[in-house]
Formats: sequence, C-alpha cells, structure tokens
Amino acid sequence: MQTRIGCVAICLFMLATRMALLSANQASSQNVGEDAVNGEWLVTRDVYGNPLYQKLILKLENGKLTGSLAEDKLEGTLQGRTLHFIARDADNNTSEFTGVLSNSVVEGNIVETNASDPSDRMETRMTATRAPKRQPGPPRRHEFTPTSFYRQFSASNKPVLEIAPGDTVHTTTVDAGGADEHGIRRVLGGNPETGPFYVLTAWPGDTLVVHLKRIRLNRDYAISDDAIVERALDNDMSVKMKDAGKSVRWYLDRERMVARSERPGDHLRSFTVPLRPMLGCVATAPGFASAPPPTGDSGHWGGNMDFNEIVEGVTVYLPVNQPGALLYVGDGHAAQGDGELNGDALETSMEVEFAVDIIPNKRIRTPRVESDSKIMTVGLGGSLEEALRAATRGMSEWLEQDYSLNPSEVAQVLGTSAQFNISEVADRNVGVAAKLSTQQLQPLKRR
Amino acid sequence: MQTRIGCVAICLFMLATRMALLSANQASSQNVGEDAVNGEWLVTRDVYGNPLYQKLILKLENGKLTGSLAEDKLEGTLQGRTLHFIARDADNNTSEFTGVLSNSVVEGNIVETNASDPSDRMETRMTATRAPKRQPGPPRRHEFTPTSFYRQFSASNKPVLEIAPGDTVHTTTVDAGGADEHGIRRVLGGNPETGPFYVLTAWPGDTLVVHLKRIRLNRDYAISDDAIVERALDNDMSVKMKDAGKSVRWYLDRERMVARSERPGDHLRSFTVPLRPMLGCVATAPGFASAPPPTGDSGHWGGNMDFNEIVEGVTVYLPVNQPGALLYVGDGHAAQGDGELNGDALETSMEVEFAVDIIPNKRIRTPRVESDSKIMTVGLGGSLEEALRAATRGMSEWLEQDYSLNPSEVAQVLGTSAQFNISEVADRNVGVAAKLSTQQLQPLKRR
Amino acid sequence: MQTRIGCVAICLFMLATRMALLSANQASSQNVGEDAVNGEWLVTRDVYGNPLYQKLILKLENGKLTGSLAEDKLEGTLQGRTLHFIARDADNNTSEFTGVLSNSVVEGNIVETNASDPSDRMETRMTATRAPKRQPGPPRRHEFTPTSFYRQFSASNKPVLEIAPGDTVHTTTVDAGGADEHGIRRVLGGNPETGPFYVLTAWPGDTLVVHLKRIRLNRDYAISDDAIVERALDNDMSVKMKDAGKSVRWYLDRERMVARSERPGDHLRSFTVPLRPMLGCVATAPGFASAPPPTGDSGHWGGNMDFNEIVEGVTVYLPVNQPGALLYVGDGHAAQGDGELNGDALETSMEVEFAVDIIPNKRIRTPRVESDSKIMTVGLGGSLEEALRAATRGMSEWLEQDYSLNPSEVAQVLGTSAQFNISEVADRNVGVAAKLSTQQLQPLKRR
Amino acid sequence: MQTRIGCVAICLFMLATRMALLSANQASSQNVGEDAVNGEWLVTRDVYGNPLYQKLILKLENGKLTGSLAEDKLEGTLQGRTLHFIARDADNNTSEFTGVLSNSVVEGNIVETNASDPSDRMETRMTATRAPKRQPGPPRRHEFTPTSFYRQFSASNKPVLEIAPGDTVHTTTVDAGGADEHGIRRVLGGNPETGPFYVLTAWPGDTLVVHLKRIRLNRDYAISDDAIVERALDNDMSVKMKDAGKSVRWYLDRERMVARSERPGDHLRSFTVPLRPMLGCVATAPGFASAPPPTGDSGHWGGNMDFNEIVEGVTVYLPVNQPGALLYVGDGHAAQGDGELNGDALETSMEVEFAVDIIPNKRIRTPRVESDSKIMTVGLGGSLEEALRAATRGMSEWLEQDYSLNPSEVAQVLGTSAQFNISEVADRNVGVAAKLSTQQLQPLKRR
Repeated sequence: MQTRIGCVAICLFMLATRMALLSANQASSQNVGEDAVNGEWLVTRDVYGNPLYQKLILKLENGKLTGSLAEDKLEGTLQGRTLHFIARDADNNTSEFTGVLSNSVVEGNIVETNASDPSDRMETRMTATRAPKRQPGPPRRHEFTPTSFYRQFSASNKPVLEIAPGDTVHTTTVDAGGADEHGIRRVLGGNPETGPFYVLTAWPGDTLVVHLKRIRLNRDYAISDDAIVERALDNDMSVKMKDAGKSVRWYLDRERMVARSERPGDHLRSFTVPLRPMLGCVATAPGFASAPPPTGDSGHWGGNMDFNEIVEGVTVYLPVNQPGALLYVGDGHAAQGDGELNGDALETSMEVEFAVDIIPNKRIRTPRVESDSKIMTVGLGGSLEEALRAATRGMSEWLEQDYSLNPSEVAQVLGTSAQFNISEVADRNVGVAAKLSTQQLQPLKRR
Repeated sequence: MQTRIGCVAICLFMLATRMALLSANQASSQNVGEDAVNGEWLVTRDVYGNPLYQKLILKLENGKLTGSLAEDKLEGTLQGRTLHFIARDADNNTSEFTGVLSNSVVEGNIVETNASDPSDRMETRMTATRAPKRQPGPPRRHEFTPTSFYRQFSASNKPVLEIAPGDTVHTTTVDAGGADEHGIRRVLGGNPETGPFYVLTAWPGDTLVVHLKRIRLNRDYAISDDAIVERALDNDMSVKMKDAGKSVRWYLDRERMVARSERPGDHLRSFTVPLRPMLGCVATAPGFASAPPPTGDSGHWGGNMDFNEIVEGVTVYLPVNQPGALLYVGDGHAAQGDGELNGDALETSMEVEFAVDIIPNKRIRTPRVESDSKIMTVGLGGSLEEALRAATRGMSEWLEQDYSLNPSEVAQVLGTSAQFNISEVADRNVGVAAKLSTQQLQPLKRR
Repeated sequence: MQTRIGCVAICLFMLATRMALLSANQASSQNVGEDAVNGEWLVTRDVYGNPLYQKLILKLENGKLTGSLAEDKLEGTLQGRTLHFIARDADNNTSEFTGVLSNSVVEGNIVETNASDPSDRMETRMTATRAPKRQPGPPRRHEFTPTSFYRQFSASNKPVLEIAPGDTVHTTTVDAGGADEHGIRRVLGGNPETGPFYVLTAWPGDTLVVHLKRIRLNRDYAISDDAIVERALDNDMSVKMKDAGKSVRWYLDRERMVARSERPGDHLRSFTVPLRPMLGCVATAPGFASAPPPTGDSGHWGGNMDFNEIVEGVTVYLPVNQPGALLYVGDGHAAQGDGELNGDALETSMEVEFAVDIIPNKRIRTPRVESDSKIMTVGLGGSLEEALRAATRGMSEWLEQDYSLNPSEVAQVLGTSAQFNISEVADRNVGVAAKLSTQQLQPLKRR
Repeated sequence: MQTRIGCVAICLFMLATRMALLSANQASSQNVGEDAVNGEWLVTRDVYGNPLYQKLILKLENGKLTGSLAEDKLEGTLQGRTLHFIARDADNNTSEFTGVLSNSVVEGNIVETNASDPSDRMETRMTATRAPKRQPGPPRRHEFTPTSFYRQFSASNKPVLEIAPGDTVHTTTVDAGGADEHGIRRVLGGNPETGPFYVLTAWPGDTLVVHLKRIRLNRDYAISDDAIVERALDNDMSVKMKDAGKSVRWYLDRERMVARSERPGDHLRSFTVPLRPMLGCVATAPGFASAPPPTGDSGHWGGNMDFNEIVEGVTVYLPVNQPGALLYVGDGHAAQGDGELNGDALETSMEVEFAVDIIPNKRIRTPRVESDSKIMTVGLGGSLEEALRAATRGMSEWLEQDYSLNPSEVAQVLGTSAQFNISEVADRNVGVAAKLSTQQLQPLKRR
C-alpha cells in the first residue's frame, strides 16, 4: 500500500515535545471565564504512540463555543470545566472531543469518525496548552553557537532556539562530513544541520520567509571528489569513470574568492573555481504523514536541495508544516556546479546569518527562492521529468498567487521567458529549478 | 552533498540496544584466559550520538591477538585486562582500539584514521558484549501474537522475538491502515509491521532466507479505492480521473476465493477478483548509512515492495545489514494487480507463517523471490528505468552467483527468456520484477 | 517548434499514388445526374508538394449538395459541371472548393481559411476519383510471394495487394537483417517488411482487425547477439558488459520447438529456449502529420512493437490512418524475452497467414492485442513512464468503449487485476503492455 | 529487432544523387596512368535499392594499389583497366571489389563478407566518380534566395548550393508554419528548412563548423500559443490547462527589441519579452543507418534542437555524416524560454548569414555550440536523464579532445563548474544543454 495515515483525512502537525504538561485538575462545577478559554491552543495528541500537534482555536461567546481544530470548524459547549465540541471537515468526517479545562490545560479524548463508514473510528488522547507567545519588543539578533547537530529533518528534535518573526540569527554550520570551521569533526557526516529554530507564531498553513543575510566561508579548505554520479553517466562514460572516486581537497582563497585543487593534475594546474558560497540545506520540518527524512533528502519542505542559487542575499520561502516551522540550515558549499555532479560539491563549514518572517495563511507547495534579479522555484522528484513538473507547477502557483495570472497567461509567461536548470542529480530526489527575471515581471502587478 | 557518513569507509551495523551493559571493572594485572577472549562479540559504538553495531572476532593464541572488526583484519595485544588492537581496511585506513576486558564486557575508545589524510580522525566510545547465542536443540515453532506495530524499518526498534535459523513463526499482521482481523484499529496507518524478529547468528554480509509457509486471509473484507496513481495518468486521464479517490470496500469470499465490491457500480455487479493473498512488506532493517525508512519505503533490503508474487509458498531472500537481520512483515493484500495502480491494493489483515534460515557470507544486492516455477528479482528505484536496471543487475548477479554464468551467457539467458513486470508504481520507489522460469534453468548447474 | 502541419487544424490522410487520374474535361452546361455525384470519393491533394488523401462524401438531392470532407460537414451547389462547396469544422475554419466534375473525376482548387485569423489561408490543388470498391463474392484467400520489402512504414509505398475485409493472406517475411527462408539476403536489414496490403473500404477513423492465423518458422536458424541494451544496464553492468556484442546463432529445433545456441559457452550447453514464434512488426501506415517512420520505429499505429504476445492465434487491432489502412508485417522472432534485452531477439524468417476485417467509425488510440485468454494494449513512448501511461490510457479506453465502464470502474478493474509487462526497451520507443484476463472480464457486458 | 543495417559493420554515407554517371567503357588491355587513378573518389552504391555513398582513396605506386574505402584499408591491383581490391575492417570483415576504370568512372560489383559467418555475404553494385573539387580563389559570399523548403533532414534532398569552407551564405528562412517574411505561406508547416547546402571537401568523419554571423528578424510578428506541453504538466496542472491551446500572435518591436502580445489578457498588458532571435534548427544530414528524420526531430547531427543559445554570433559544430555535410537551417524563433514549454516559441521568419568551415578527421558525437562566453553541448534523448547523459558525455569528450583532460580532471571541472539547462521538452527528443564558462577555461591549454 501507499503510505497514508488512515481513512480519516487528517491535517495534522507534529512537534518536539517541549512542554511540561500540567496534570489537569478535577472538573468543578464552577464556570470558567471567557478569557481562560478564548484564543489559540497548541494541541498534542497521542495517536497510537505517535505525537501529533494541532492548532486549536476556541471562542466562548454568550455561552456558545465556536472555533476550529486544525482546518475544521468546531461547535460545542462548556459546562463548568467540562468541554465538549465536534469539529467537522468538508466531507462531514467528525472529531468529537470530551474533556476538562483546568489551569490552562485542556485534557480529554477525541474520537474521529469516518462519515462514509461509521465503523471506522479512531480514539486518541488529547492535551492542549497555551501556544507559546511572542514577547513584545523590537526584533532581536541572536548569536547562536551550535553544540549539537541533527541528521534528520525531524519535528521531534528539540529546538535549539525560539525566535520571533523579524529576528536575526547569526550562527555557523559544519560541513557535510561533520567537521567545523577548525576542521574538527563534531558529528557523524551526512549533512548534519544547525537548528531546528522554533519560529514563534508559525502554524501549519503559513509560509516561512528566510532572508539569508550572510553566507560566508570560515575556513580555507573544502572537500570534494572526482567521481560523476550514476545518473549522469551513459555506458561509455561508466566504463571510463570506473576507477574514479578519490577525494579532492580544494584550497579556498578567500581574498581572490577562488578555489584551487591542492594537488591538481597536470592539466588543471591553473584551473580555479570562482567561490560562490551557498547552503545545500534549508528546511522546515515536514508534516506528520512522513517519517522524519534523513538530512540527505528533500521535499516540498526544502531540505537537501543542493541548489547553487541559495547564496547570500536571497530569500527562501518554505511551507510551515509544524508549529514553530522548525527551521534547519546546513551543508555549506564553497561552490557547486549545476547538478552537483561529483556527489559532493566543495563541502565546507560556513558562517551564516539569517532573518525570519511569517506570512500567515499562505500555503505554497514548492520551495521558492528570490534574489534581486530572479524568482525561482525548486521542483524535486524521483526523475527529472517529475522534478520539471514540480518546478513548473510551483512557478505557476507563484504567478497565480502573487501576480493574479490565469492559466493562459501563466503559459505565455513560462513559455516565452522561463529558464530551467537542473539543480541537482546527486541525491535520491533530483531537482529542477524554474527561474523568471524579476525585471521582466516588473510591469506586472504583484500582490 | 550526497549523504555519506564520513571519509573513513565504514561497514557498520546497528541494533536496538537490548543489552544491559555491565560497567567494566578496573583492569587488573591478572591475565585473562583465552576462553574469556576468543569468539564473537557484538560491538556497540556511540558515533556522535548514533548507535553503531559491529561484529568483533577475537582470537588469542600464544599471547598473540588476531581477528577482525567488521570487515577489517586486526592485530593486537592483551596485557592483563588491557586490550589494544589496530584494524586495517584495504585502503590502509585504521581503527585503533584501547580498552579493558572485564566480566564479559569490552570497553574503551576507538580512533579511526584516514590513511590519505591523517588529520581526518574520528574517536568514538565502544563497548562489546558476547553475541547472543543460538540454543541447542531442534528447530522451534513460535506462536507470536503481536501487540505493538512499527512504522519504520528501523534497527532501533526492540525485537519482539529472538528466533533461530530453522525456526518457524506463526503470527498475524494488521492491514495497511492499522486494523486487525476484527476490524479494530490497533495502530496508526501507513503499513504498520509485525516484528522485528531477531534471527540468531545473522550478521551483516549474510543472506536471510524467509520461507512463507502460510499467507491466509483472517477476515472477510478489504479496503481499497478508485483512484489511479499519478505516474500512470497522462494528461487526458488526469482530467478524466480528477474526481476519483473514494474508498471502495471489498467483500472477501474465502470459500470461492474471490473478492467482490460491496457496492459495485452498474457495470461491475458480476465482477470478481480472484483472491491471491500476498504480503506488501517483507524487510530486513537497513544498514547504518540511512536514516530508518518509513514503512512505505523500499530498497535493496526489501520493504514495501508491493510485489504480487510474494504469496504463500515462495521464499524471499534479503541481505542482512544488521546483527540479527531484524525481519519485518506486514501490509497484507487479498489481491493486487501489477503496479498497485489504485495506490491501495485490497488491503486486509493476514495470518502468516514463515520459517527462516541464514546463508552465511553470501551477499546479495537485490531482493530475491523464488517460487516453484520462477526465480525473481525486485528492482527498486525512483524511475522505471532505474528499477529495470536494478532488476536486471539483480538477476544477472543471481545467475553469476548460483549458476556460474559469465556476462555473455547472462545476456543470452535474459534476452531470450526473462519476463519483466512492473511490480509497483504507487510509492516513492517504483519496482520492476525480472522473472525466469525454473524449469528452463533446470539443465543449468546450480551451486 | 514542435512539428505541426500548420495553423488550420486538418485531419488529413495520405496514400501511395496508385491511381492514374484522368484529366478532367471542360465543364459543360449540361447537368450531371445524381448517380454521377453521390457516394464516396477518394481525394488527393497536393499540399506544397506533399500528397494528402481524404474521404469526400457527396449527396445531391433536390438540387442541394451536402456531404462531408474528411471530418467536416459540407454544403454546396452543382451548376452544370461546376462544383462548389464549403466544409466547416467545429471551430468554424473553412475549406472552400471550386472545380469541375467530369468523367468520374472531380478537379479544382481548395482554399482553407483560419477562422480566428482570416489572413491565414492555404490554397491547394485537389482531385478526386471514385474510391476503389470491394468486389462482390465470398472472402478470398490470397497466396502472396513477396518480391520487394519496404524499410519505412510509409503511405507512399505502392501496395503489393488489394484485399477485402474477410480475406485471408498467406505469405512470408524475411528476417530483420533481410534474409529469407533460404538464408538469402533479399534486402538491406532494419526490419524490412512484407506489404503494404491495401484493405478495401478502410478509411481513416476505422479500426483494422488483423487475425494472425499462422506464424510458423520456415527455416532452422535464428540470429541474435550477447549484448544488453543500454537502457537495462547500470554503471556496474556497463563495465561488466563492455566487451559484449558478438553475434549468436541459434539452431531452431522445430520438432521439439526449442532453440539452442550453435556454439554455447560451457554453462549453457544444455540450455534451450522454448520457441514461441511472433511478429516484431505489425503496422498500418501513419497519418499525414508525420514523416514516414523507419521500420524500427513504432507508434499508436503499431510498427516495431517487439511484443512477444503477438503470436499465432491472436488478433491485433490498429487504427486506420490512411485510405486502405496499408498493413505491414515483418520482423519475425522465433522467441523473445520481455524487453528484447539483446537488441535482437531470435531473428528469423517466417511463414505468415492472416485475415483482415474493418470496424467502421471506431477510433482507437493504442494498438490492441486479443488472445483467447487476455486483452492487451501496447503503450509506446520515449520513457517507460510514458509507455505505462499510454498502455493504461489504451486499456482504459478499451474498457470504456467495449465494456461501458466509467472512470471509477476502470480504476477498480485496472488496480485489482491488470498485469503490466515491459514489452520492449531495445528501440527508440520503449513499450509497456497492459493485460487483463478475458475470463475475469467474462461477466461484464461487452458491446 | 532494433534497427541495424546488417551483419557487416558498415560506416556508410549517403547523398542526393547529383552526378550524371557516365557509362563505363569496356576494359581494354591498355594500362591506365597513375594520375587517372590516384586521389579521392565519391562512391555510390545501390544497396538493395538504397543509395549509399562512401569515400574511396586510391594510390597506385610502382604497380601496387593501396588506399581506403570508407574507414577500411584496401590493397589491390590494376591490370589494364580492370580494378580489383579487398578492403578489410578491424574485425577482418572484407569488401571485395571487381570492376573497371574508364573515363573517370569506376564501375563494378562489391561483395561484403562477414568474417565470423562466411555464408553471410552481400553483393552490391558500385560506381565511383571524382569527388567534387573546391575551386581555387578566396572565400566567397553567396546571396541565396530559397524557393523550395524541405521537411526531412534527408541526404536525398537535392542540394540548393555548393559552398566551400570559408564561404559565407546570406539567406532567409520561413517560419515553422511555412510562412515567409511577407507572411505568405510558402510550404506546409513543420519546420520547413532552407538548404541543404553542400560543403565541398566535407567527408564523413569530419566536423562542420557553422559561424552564425547574422540572425535577424525580417517581419514584425510571431505566432505562438498558450498551451503547456504534456511533459511539463502534473495531474493538477493537466486539469487546470485542459482548455488551453489557443494561438497567440506577438508583435515584434524591432526598435526596442521586445515582443508583446497583440491581444494580451488583463494581467499581461504591460508584459514584454526581450527579443533574442535564434534558430530552432541547424542540422547536417544524418548517416545511412537511419531513415531520413522529419524536421521536427533531432539527434547527434543537430536538427530541431530548439536551443535558445543558438543566436547570432555563436558557432555551431556538427558531425559530418554524408559527403558534403548537407547543412540545413530553419525554424527561427524571435524569443524562446528554456524548454519551449508552449510547444511553439515566438515562431517567425528570419534573415540569416553564416560562414562554414571543415575540421577534417575530427569526430564529435554531440552538437556543440560556442559563444564568446561559453562552450555548450546539446544532449538529446527520449527522457531528460538520457539527454543529461548525452550532454555530459559530449562535454566530457570536448574537454578530452580539445583540452587534453583525463577522466578525473573532467569530473572535477564538470562537478564544480558546469551549468545544465533544460533546452527543450516540446519534441520527441528532449534536450539538456551543458555549459562551461570560456573565461574559466582560459588558463587551460586548448589544442
């Protein structure tokens, strides 16, 4: 079977369990005030051993309880401390909650029922606490020195820092093999990440905005190799490259901003590669449905995209799938050709500074990158055709959402003006990037 | 960067931490006897927070210590309780251990050094205990009633049972959505698995043999749907199928061995599907390099292959990548067309009985399936071309290993006689199965 | 640009110029009787040097002229011998004819105009003669000995025989290299074909039915080789197979119906391949839009499908794209594995007998094959994914057209019951075959 | 079967029959002088009705005859006017000629024999005349006004002009639909081509160099549409685009060098596309093995590559497969995005000026394009993966041939520095372009 979660369509989210949950007091006959009820709650559910996180909005007005659980509208009652509501989705599947509210904690059971098959029901334990709140005050700049590094883009990894929209983080990343700016190995390789950063007020259905203000080299060497990945080799070249694969160490000349091989072959003695530091990985934590992907993987939530336009100065937009978004950064490359043909780029540690923002209630289905001169989408999939379709779909969605274009207009803009690069063929997913010139889009009205 | 573990080539394995490790006593000046040293040890290493498991063989003879760590030969000394050895791989990369032996526990540090870059070194903590031993006696039949179900093919899941080569297990599996033979949901959906079963004496580099002696229906309905997966739809059919996707419930008539839709449309009133119960998932736990894959995924270690020839009576061969192999079974289908075009097959719970065996030191790179009439390999990859190449490579390897054929002979057998089916297009990996008739191979000499 | 013919949507067809066209006499003032006008005409147009063939139906009644040109309805007048009509398609594009009728020949000019851009017009010369008629009488059996063989599936090749629906042809084919049943080379290699056979009454929009009554070996050897095609080789196998490619000659034992290599390697001394004679090529001539494809190519019109189920006893259905259908047969294989992995199958000459039929006004978009036990469609495309989609679309169309299933029902039948084989990966197009059991479809109502 | 020509590996070439062949006189006993024998001859062979063209070099010295036929060395004798020689390839397959030399014509029969199967022989008629010679004098500039346009990249189309290396041609092309600079339709659509131009001294095995000196717009409109090709549409977009496909006419503002839609939708009123005139087609005639491809097709010989970097100022390198190379140009685009997503680019007529050159005995397997800033190869195939492999192989070959790099060095240059664009997805073949910066290659030694 394809992996789905179950028969009841659930839009769920998940998060590292960071909250000490207070044990609920007994329900009393005393009524609770509207202030104690109204507002946003962060729901934690135990679904057969899997933590699921959702947004709950409650509104008590004139004794009537309304609001929403995740995407679904709810209606209910509060009698004393006993809370009861039914949430309903578009297909009339229901989630019925019964529990108590006590000391800022809601606790009880929730029963989901499949509208088209009443025998198909799932009962889970639910607790909810007040969602973490953004502190008042101006944006802050966080100096963050990482001490641990994660190897899965998981919602279960404990956030290293809570940051607010508008805040800036200055930090570092280790290289793909786990070595830091001093060449000291700090963690097992495989693109270990700095983060996750919990972005306050970010809920599933929002878009996370990451302004990459600085991506700077912080050591003078990078590691790569001299193989070519299988996907780029035909039969003849497979034979020719059969003994390839030795490690190549590059000296990073940060004054002239070029790399040169430390032990070049005869014909490459004068060959240099212009440095263009980039991040191979920028990710939010994926949603509940998938098991946490390893940090070599990618998806609509970003990840190991290995796209050489993710450089200093660009803005990356990613869908938020979990409360707090849970931003990861890592896998710095001093330079990388399209496709990352060697499997490795010029792998190195990096100094990174970024600011974050949230666009509430804006859903995007494809990672977006914006520079001064281009808007770009990164399509990812198991084959280049699949990646091309994802990149095209993503750019089409961008033109619809932000420029109000209809399908015919989208086709005219893409056909005449889009650029398509093969961003990556080195990992399980391959990537195709669609690019449009911002100058050419200038005359269009952007929302 | 592509995800690799690090610069030192390591053949490692991983396992749920099931052993209470005794704290090592202080090294004394008193010498340890050969019996206390010689034999197989199960190594657990903490690699920057990731558990790694390896096989250690020690042989103390005339005061000289030899043996192997994983694939690498080692030489060393034992002075009192102080153990020191250096293991070396083919490229002269070294792993140097220093520690103590005490009360059947070896404990200390291991330093790996890259031969071509001495600055590239990794130090990890290592402990080793005696490998679990097979009990003497005839093969046993285990009656196993599962109470928990896993949703990752992980080496970190606690084995539910230790079994020996030759043993038989009789058990059940829940359906892909998590419901059992009574239709009770027991776990979140997504192909929850029965297992893992720890197979004694199985080490990485061996092949696990799984004889599927019974795969029987144990309830009278299955769940499927009426969509067609994206990979099988061209533009016209995408438009035509745009509203598809409703759940379809099938009645399983176990007497006549056919399924019929419980609410068929007008034209399918008399349409029945012959029942051919199969397992969508048979897997060993993958090796250390990859993060544990979700139970919808697949690879050279098997997994969610959704191959409709994995029926009662066949034998499945899978590579062992972790000590104990860690066998998982699940995702029963009452029947399935090639490709599993609906995304779901006829998903149902199942009664399963299997016997296991181990072929020591035989490495296979592709799942193999053997029936009375066919030998089959399952190629898996991101595109059908990739899967075809994997299936062809796997069958070629089988003909080389077991029938001693050279490349020219392999080509002649495959070109004239192989059958290729598209086994699955519903998951992230697609599958292609290569099949050869055992009758046709009869005249060939099988090793 | 993608190749299209022009801005005016034209449904055109093309044919070998077989008719001596009488020069039209001058138009006289004398009126022409209805009999001289009414009925089917075969149109030949000279479109900038390219011959185009269309069906013209004229009906003169009470002085009013109606009918159709290709797909488009026409209205017009006949004044004396002067014929004038305007045909109109669904988008209101028009084709206006002015000319004369004389001695069973219509001759004049036709002007096509683009409704959305009146400046876009195309004027061509048109002549029409009476369509060749089927002779009365019972079906005939033609004994046909080929003397020439074609290497393009072209509508411009002169038909070797005119046959009627119901007729049977008994003939032979040379092998893919051009050698006949005596091993004499008769033509340059590359799948030279027997045919084309002109099937009377076949018009574009019909379906040609080919019953393959006999496909028999007529010599005792076949030629193949020991390579594996690039598409089926991964990097490792590319290296392993780098010196492959030598010719392999197989002895065809027609008594025991097995093939054995004439000079087998050590391990294949007793290896035999069951003979299952098949035709690699069955084709109708494609339509006007494409340049005539070489006989190694394939498409919705069939061609070099190399599908090992096209054996004696099956029926092949192909779309008619040209007047007379223009049927080609060739490329006999004594046996072939799925995919034709060696590039060559067991290539040999063949004795062939087939009967033809026409299903008027039935359009199919995919080659269909029907045996006693299975209905099958052959999807063809540049990648296996594309071929899978074509096979699925084709089978879906079959279930809709012949079994009245709706999309949801189609999905349920395919998902539970379809078999998908990789029919071919050796040519420019690859093929995937979808198969359904006729026994399983038995309860369904077939139109 | 895959289409091959026959069992004897033949490197053949083909050409429009432009030479009046004199009938050979009877052989006399009188000996022929060395001048009458020595030098290059253009061979025409009739291979079962297919014209084949080859280069023959004869050298008579001291009564001994040596030389070559196509790639194979020959040895023979001349007795009176009777010529006899045997040419032999690397596998010892032989071609034995017997005939007479008379009045500058060689005529006789040639018998090819398969070394590994002597029964496999092919006899063909052969005539040879003196190869056309380049006239002495400086390079010329040809003003050429096309009157006919071809729709196949065929060696059988009569050359429109003979030109010499160094010569320049100034001409025009019609648009993809067949309309010229006055908007008059001149030929059926489908990328009708100007040419073929016969380049004197060009033989198979050489490389043709085409300097594109001018590619200028010569009318003020272009035709395109608002569809997106199937390959770029996922299921959702297929539904969204289901009604697309209407023609879009663009005004070409040649002063400001931008295009704007003549009837833009609301949101594209101010949208303009920068003009960047290019040629969709540049081709040499393919070799003998393939049937002449339609002008919508492409291959290692170039063709309908639809690559938007083939603009004024670049140099295109193509393999010569036929005597005279037979250069075609056509399918001008005023502008085109990567991939030609609409199927049509901004299709228009064009003024074109190019100079040609020949690099003798240099074989390339992939079209190459060189601009001031980049070297580029165009990989073409049935899937993007296949095209990527072809582009990579082509660029690798370029770096080996012209920069002497070994495989390890090639990998380092490509991995760090190559750019990969999806050049086209609109035709049967898709294209991927590999690009390297000439500035970065500057320090490398170019042969």
